[in-house]
Amino acid sequence: MTAEPATRPAAATTLADLPLRDGIRGEHPYGAPQIDVPVLLNVNENPHAPSPAVVADIARAVAGAAAGLNRYPDRDFPALRADFAAFLRRESGVELTPEQIWAANGSNEVMLHVLQAFGGPGRTALSFAPTYSMYPEYARDTLTGWVTGRREDDFTLDVDHARAAIAEHRPSVVILTSPNNPTGTALPLEVVEAVAEAVTDGVVVVDEAYAEFRRAGVPSALELLPRFGHLAVSRTMSKAFSLAGARVGYLAAAPAFVDALRIVRLPYHLSAVTQAVAGAALRHSEELLGRVHELRDRRDETVRWLRGKGFQAPTSDSNFVLFGRFEDRHAVWRGLLDQGVLIRETGPEGWLRVSVGTEEEMRAFRTALEEVTGR
Amino acid sequence: MTAEPATRPAAATTLADLPLRDGIRGEHPYGAPQIDVPVLLNVNENPHAPSPAVVADIARAVAGAAAGLNRYPDRDFPALRADFAAFLRRESGVELTPEQIWAANGSNEVMLHVLQAFGGPGRTALSFAPTYSMYPEYARDTLTGWVTGRREDDFTLDVDHARAAIAEHRPSVVILTSPNNPTGTALPLEVVEAVAEAVTDGVVVVDEAYAEFRRAGVPSALELLPRFGHLAVSRTMSKAFSLAGARVGYLAAAPAFVDALRIVRLPYHLSAVTQAVAGAALRHSEELLGRVHELRDRRDETVRWLRGKGFQAPTSDSNFVLFGRFEDRHAVWRGLLDQGVLIRETGPEGWLRVSVGTEEEMRAFRTALEEVTGR
Repeated sequence: MTAEPATRPAAATTLADLPLRDGIRGEHPYGAPQIDVPVLLNVNENPHAPSPAVVADIARAVAGAAAGLNRYPDRDFPALRADFAAFLRRESGVELTPEQIWAANGSNEVMLHVLQAFGGPGRTALSFAPTYSMYPEYARDTLTGWVTGRREDDFTLDVDHARAAIAEHRPSVVILTSPNNPTGTALPLEVVEAVAEAVTDGVVVVDEAYAEFRRAGVPSALELLPRFGHLAVSRTMSKAFSLAGARVGYLAAAPAFVDALRIVRLPYHLSAVTQAVAGAALRHSEELLGRVHELRDRRDETVRWLRGKGFQAPTSDSNFVLFGRFEDRHAVWRGLLDQGVLIRETGPEGWLRVSVGTEEEMRAFRTALEEVTGR
Repeated sequence: MTAEPATRPAAATTLADLPLRDGIRGEHPYGAPQIDVPVLLNVNENPHAPSPAVVADIARAVAGAAAGLNRYPDRDFPALRADFAAFLRRESGVELTPEQIWAANGSNEVMLHVLQAFGGPGRTALSFAPTYSMYPEYARDTLTGWVTGRREDDFTLDVDHARAAIAEHRPSVVILTSPNNPTGTALPLEVVEAVAEAVTDGVVVVDEAYAEFRRAGVPSALELLPRFGHLAVSRTMSKAFSLAGARVGYLAAAPAFVDALRIVRLPYHLSAVTQAVAGAALRHSEELLGRVHELRDRRDETVRWLRGKGFQAPTSDSNFVLFGRFEDRHAVWRGLLDQGVLIRETGPEGWLRVSVGTEEEMRAFRTALEEVTGR
């Protein structure tokens, strides 16, 4: 009789045989289904690919960087940080220095850095639901407790409720999402200000991934940065810049806040190629953001059309629209998919989210929704 | 009289004012000094830049990817994983499937994924000193305990000592570095095998960042993968592939091991651009690795020369050489720097590490060392 071997061959090893840490046993990789259908309106991508001029400039910039790829990239990428500061000044009118900018592989890595620096065991991150479904994953990955307050029925954030939640949970990190995903709701500056004032032993991050799509007159929380050293505003090139595939997120805050993130980042986390791609795209920001106006108009049209059909659709400051409510939202999602239109089954029960695509894609969406719901 | 405000303006905020988590208060960003001198032999970069043909192919591949950058990248990058599997088969003769491959932004992110999956509070990672100085940072960032056993005076790893350290610490993750940084020492397969057999409730990662530089006949731990489901081998494109600036590390293991890493990775962590760059470089692997032979020969020459001058220099299977010992190694390091040659002050007290550069760079190193030490 032979004893069972203590170790297993590769072919006989399952996930359950491996010593995963507590908290991730039984978990699955996160992500929206990547299904190949004609009309993709599920992950808030920009429907406009970079133009040939942008593509050519990106390729040129990468060729320049590639000639020195045997060397490690600059760990602190001062040139790119200066480019981001200049862009934010143009976009929001807020003066920023390069030392106030941080960047990483997607704003999800930026947010991971924030939670690695300020979260951790025995600490809590607070946000207000419904909101972006990735936040609890960042908390899990950094062993940070995760709690949510609530948004009102119209998806606004009540200041008194926010203050009470902060007093109750004493969070080390508060994440405000503006415009909020998946509801599209932007926060008034007074709300961000009240939250920043209420958080006296933690930091506040305003996730402005969709900020470039906000309606005229809606402010950015960047305006509050001079007043609060514990406040940060995160942005991304994935949406307005049409660069989801390049994975570039960034953040603006006090220089000391950025220094905290520099402690926890992996050295050389941002490749020389990514730095080159982001820099090239920023040189075309006028052109890339020019399409944003068009997407904004189409979003407003989509909201009007949905309301005209008797659906609820909150006003959106982003490039997507939440709509509902449905008794069986999964059936509606599935029905649209059967017609080649992929949207996202996310947000509170009964609601669905559609990204704003091209004119043609939105026509396909409207036709499919009429078909499926009979309205 | 006005009360001190509870929050501070950005300009008045210092790192000490921010609520950094325990364990990183007082820490500084990791990294070798980035000093601009003529001869850079400090971070084990490959001195050979990618050739114009490689640069052109990288630019072409990125231009192809850029045309679709408005879309998120493939989260599971099956094409690139197949390319890595094919490369490792050619390089080591070990058959691997794409499902056995993982990749991330540098092998430091690969290692972070391993510790996020298998480390964590209450768990311990074990390695054997002297070894790579980044490992304790990964442990810190994942709240994993960090312990080290020791290597012998000749930097080999004693199997009985390794078994005893494993029995004592019951580590969840054992990191074996082969060839070891900063000593250059490769581990015999029997040692890796003995460690893999001794770890019955954890995983073992062999960091083979420098494996392509190993001497003829020195095996890769890839050969052991079929036998152990809890064993992984990590590699990088930073060294032999001359792609430090592109940040591409990868790992081979059982498919279940890779699934564990897929749980903790951030979605879309590997950009479409990085996938394109790595794929293009892999198509030129013959050419890129062709320069490895030359670097190996120059490394062996450097070891012989150092020994001829009466220094100690352990046999190296990597693209760097540890040498010593010096009463005041900092003075020697500084003396070389004053002559425009930057090497690394790392490893056990009294030793220094020099990367293998071009013929001309090594001549500058030898001349400067003779000058500084008077030998």
